[in-house]
Amino acid sequence: MNSPALIIFCFLLLSAFSHAAVQDFCVADYSGPQSPAGYSCKNPGKVTVDDFVYSGLGVAGNTSTFKAGITTAFVSDFPGLNGLGVSIARADLAPGGVVPLHSHPGASEILLVVEGTVTTGFVSSANSVYLKTLKKGDIIVFPQGLLHFAVNAGHSNALIFITFSSESPGLQILDTALFGSNLPTELIAKTTFLDPAVVKKLKGVFGGSG
Amino acid sequence: MNSPALIIFCFLLLSAFSHAAVQDFCVADYSGPQSPAGYSCKNPGKVTVDDFVYSGLGVAGNTSTFKAGITTAFVSDFPGLNGLGVSIARADLAPGGVVPLHSHPGASEILLVVEGTVTTGFVSSANSVYLKTLKKGDIIVFPQGLLHFAVNAGHSNALIFITFSSESPGLQILDTALFGSNLPTELIAKTTFLDPAVVKKLKGVFGGSG
Amino acid sequence: MNSPALIIFCFLLLSAFSHAAVQDFCVADYSGPQSPAGYSCKNPGKVTVDDFVYSGLGVAGNTSTFKAGITTAFVSDFPGLNGLGVSIARADLAPGGVVPLHSHPGASEILLVVEGTVTTGFVSSANSVYLKTLKKGDIIVFPQGLLHFAVNAGHSNALIFITFSSESPGLQILDTALFGSNLPTELIAKTTFLDPAVVKKLKGVFGGSG
Amino acid sequence: MNSPALIIFCFLLLSAFSHAAVQDFCVADYSGPQSPAGYSCKNPGKVTVDDFVYSGLGVAGNTSTFKAGITTAFVSDFPGLNGLGVSIARADLAPGGVVPLHSHPGASEILLVVEGTVTTGFVSSANSVYLKTLKKGDIIVFPQGLLHFAVNAGHSNALIFITFSSESPGLQILDTALFGSNLPTELIAKTTFLDPAVVKKLKGVFGGSG
Amino acid sequence: MNSPALIIFCFLLLSAFSHAAVQDFCVADYSGPQSPAGYSCKNPGKVTVDDFVYSGLGVAGNTSTFKAGITTAFVSDFPGLNGLGVSIARADLAPGGVVPLHSHPGASEILLVVEGTVTTGFVSSANSVYLKTLKKGDIIVFPQGLLHFAVNAGHSNALIFITFSSESPGLQILDTALFGSNLPTELIAKTTFLDPAVVKKLKGVFGGSG
Amino acid sequence: MNSPALIIFCFLLLSAFSHAAVQDFCVADYSGPQSPAGYSCKNPGKVTVDDFVYSGLGVAGNTSTFKAGITTAFVSDFPGLNGLGVSIARADLAPGGVVPLHSHPGASEILLVVEGTVTTGFVSSANSVYLKTLKKGDIIVFPQGLLHFAVNAGHSNALIFITFSSESPGLQILDTALFGSNLPTELIAKTTFLDPAVVKKLKGVFGGSG
Repeated sequence: MNSPALIIFCFLLLSAFSHAAVQDFCVADYSGPQSPAGYSCKNPGKVTVDDFVYSGLGVAGNTSTFKAGITTAFVSDFPGLNGLGVSIARADLAPGGVVPLHSHPGASEILLVVEGTVTTGFVSSANSVYLKTLKKGDIIVFPQGLLHFAVNAGHSNALIFITFSSESPGLQILDTALFGSNLPTELIAKTTFLDPAVVKKLKGVFGGSG
Repeated sequence: MNSPALIIFCFLLLSAFSHAAVQDFCVADYSGPQSPAGYSCKNPGKVTVDDFVYSGLGVAGNTSTFKAGITTAFVSDFPGLNGLGVSIARADLAPGGVVPLHSHPGASEILLVVEGTVTTGFVSSANSVYLKTLKKGDIIVFPQGLLHFAVNAGHSNALIFITFSSESPGLQILDTALFGSNLPTELIAKTTFLDPAVVKKLKGVFGGSG
Repeated sequence: MNSPALIIFCFLLLSAFSHAAVQDFCVADYSGPQSPAGYSCKNPGKVTVDDFVYSGLGVAGNTSTFKAGITTAFVSDFPGLNGLGVSIARADLAPGGVVPLHSHPGASEILLVVEGTVTTGFVSSANSVYLKTLKKGDIIVFPQGLLHFAVNAGHSNALIFITFSSESPGLQILDTALFGSNLPTELIAKTTFLDPAVVKKLKGVFGGSG
Repeated sequence: MNSPALIIFCFLLLSAFSHAAVQDFCVADYSGPQSPAGYSCKNPGKVTVDDFVYSGLGVAGNTSTFKAGITTAFVSDFPGLNGLGVSIARADLAPGGVVPLHSHPGASEILLVVEGTVTTGFVSSANSVYLKTLKKGDIIVFPQGLLHFAVNAGHSNALIFITFSSESPGLQILDTALFGSNLPTELIAKTTFLDPAVVKKLKGVFGGSG
Repeated sequence: MNSPALIIFCFLLLSAFSHAAVQDFCVADYSGPQSPAGYSCKNPGKVTVDDFVYSGLGVAGNTSTFKAGITTAFVSDFPGLNGLGVSIARADLAPGGVVPLHSHPGASEILLVVEGTVTTGFVSSANSVYLKTLKKGDIIVFPQGLLHFAVNAGHSNALIFITFSSESPGLQILDTALFGSNLPTELIAKTTFLDPAVVKKLKGVFGGSG
Repeated sequence: MNSPALIIFCFLLLSAFSHAAVQDFCVADYSGPQSPAGYSCKNPGKVTVDDFVYSGLGVAGNTSTFKAGITTAFVSDFPGLNGLGVSIARADLAPGGVVPLHSHPGASEILLVVEGTVTTGFVSSANSVYLKTLKKGDIIVFPQGLLHFAVNAGHSNALIFITFSSESPGLQILDTALFGSNLPTELIAKTTFLDPAVVKKLKGVFGGSG
């Protein structure tokens, strides 16, 4: 089989499949409509490698004002993730730093300790507690939608990377959901059995109204 | 850890995750393009609780003209369901009322009897029949895509609620598909082995042509 | 085409597809191994209509001792749901009754008010509150994994039916997760910013240890 | 980089990933338990190419007794398909042969005409009819769960291949579901508006009882 | 139950479900935005049977210039497939014709031999080789994403039909990916251990640069 | 509402939902049957936090013999991942170290550079090359099933963490698939257009037979 034939052969194959190829990926076009499957796709002809690369996780979160900083690379930050079912974030925890109790409505999570020592855990639907202090290189997995947290258990800074089974895991932080929102104090008290005075005090802290 | 730090802390967390939050839900914007995943998403900033609430099932279907009425809350009726994989409907059956033989191409179904007595059943791919008369409070599940029906088995009105494993289950009613459509009588006869005269008569009833 | 030919014809078709037919449904065999997709399948030859019917929702939950009762029809209660992506529950709320703040890690939910008046709502990842008082016949949808609640807003009993986009939605009740578990008080305080004394008091109520 | 190093390199990579590799496929072990996701997996160490190859479609269906024969390669026939989301079948239609009205509860379908001329069509949930006579090489797609059929429109044999978006599409043939089952005549009449006499006659043909 | 009542009955049912019906299918509107779930949906009111029918596979690929031709019916060619999870292609192989080593990133595949004799196979993640020479009527399944190929093993033309578990399976041909692209020779050599001179020579054949 | 009532209340809720809770997670029981959805579930009563924690990534891969080492935490290594749709691995690259050209049949991937400088890229179905040199903290995403690679571009060790959108992404290394397997040299040559002598030489290096 001579070279020109080969070239024609490949061009035929390419032309046969060239349309399908656009579906290898769907880089987010934030200006287009969203659907339950994610953002609209950028024109593949205009996609460059920079749509698939993100540098935002290279900078440590600010822990000087206080003790914890979080930086995300979700599809809303990083268009190349659109439709690919995976995302990532970093958390920097100074000594005493805490990632407060929260859940991700739409994803399971792997937490990786890259520096330091971190105490972390989650609670299941059966109210079982799975608690562990992780050292550098350890990972823990949190099943989808369950409450979990992380605390710097050491005397130095801790750095953790968190990966998710969705490009858009969402986040519900317990304190800000209850005490940073306008959910009426009376309803919070009724549905959590917290004392209204306790609720009011925390709303003062977290900026909630009602 | 003092309060201002806490507030900053939460604002940081919120800003870190604020984009991701839009993906908690995708309320249908009926004016945008549809995709295989459903309707376009309404701007989350303009979403209100009324997008998640629907009152159309509060009114009984009209059974005065004849004996059965059905009211749906599918994503096409209720925008809050878009992408959430669940929907619901009600059926009101006067004595003698019938929900005729039909299937849902895209969903399994749970039928709940809230009032009255209802005889219901489905047929499997193996032509096995699963038949039961349900009383108030009973439920039955119909696997996706199989022919099923419901008949008021009592002397009083029956009220049933029907929930689906999709926000858009679809519905194919056997009689209207065959005898309310323009499928040619000859083809119906050939592919169902019904007598052409029987087909023609039912087309007269159901308004089919051809 | 004569009748015997037709019969042979159908037998041929049936035999051609008889194996595939077993996959219309996979009724749970609780004695077999579970997989991430659910329970093992009961032998289709031994499946009867009673595997698809459940009567447990016909009885009101006990609200005499106190003011709320919940009854579920999840795949763990009702084998016919296995693999079908839908489930249902009922809640009975006496005057003053409350379904406390909780989330479902694996499902979206439609709440239907069949009797009474119910104030209900959810909080999004953006800490937006979606709050509504529902009357008989109203429905509200809660997107997957978000904190929500219901309170009887009237002076009579309320009956609500709740349907889910999964046969196994799970449930995480905030109070029992925090105060009914053995999550150490110190960690709860650190990760919720609740006062340790408040945590200890609620652990006394909900039976938590640590 | 010298050859021994390369070999070690590759062995390292292989050992690192060797477990994961078993999940390239899950050939059906018919003797193990089934789950909603399909059959159990055969031990990958015992899998051979013959698990991925099937010769059953090489033989024309018997159309001598009468005019149509169907041969399937579903996961229940062909273990290599387990979990792979695709299957295939062939239909042989002598002149006058018919594939009667039916639906597949769990799959969309592409019908390909390899020999002859075939009139085929489907009916949508909106009772719209999509009808076409196909010649050799034409294909038509039937969306999941909708009633469709095929008729030999020529004077020679027709050969069609049918592919599905599931390894286990299921099949519900209208006539055998209604008239070849034990669904009581009275219920069929009530829920299809067919005359009981018509139902009884067809039950005689298709072997139904009740 | 008299005929007018029946007609009203059916109209009621139809109106109740008419919106939901649009979701039976989502024919591709190539002019609208794409999402990770596929193309936008054409207005259902403007959909005709011709959107569901494709004749492009009726013509043999050109094998005169050289020995192989491929024709696809993917969603990018055939709008009716949008969202339906299945597609199909044909390959014509003259004696000596080859479908070179390639993989489909997003789909499993069934290969059907309609004419001739074809040697085909795939390699698993464990580097196991599954190799078979297929005769007319044989099928083989290739699990998603694995390298596979086909070679005409006979002295006559071969015709194969290939079906996929996705409407957009994609295609990565090894030679054109490496030697028909602008991947630098040095990087190809480093990451494949091919000699740079070999790489340069094949780039000459396949038209690659760098 | 007094405390005992609260306790009863919570016990009721717990009992109501206790079965469903088992489905928060499905820790792999490697001794049970596998299904297309993954491994069987370990008895939830015997699950401990250690099922969700993995320390294998804490040790650098051996790069002394040669220049690259890879360590995985896939479901086959780490039972807690079963069914959760996410996994992770690390690669250690000494100066000159290479992760050779490969693809993951079942997952998209995010590559994170934790130490050093890495040149990486992938090729699309359209033979477009997306190539970038990443510094510490940068990430790149590789869409599912496409060929990609990584090369240490610096003079110090590089450490990368790789996360996947599946608990079992699989891996197909081009060289070991072709030259470390028993795929016959003649077929490799025919389907890759490599010279048989080149194939034979590489088989010598990678240990392939045939």
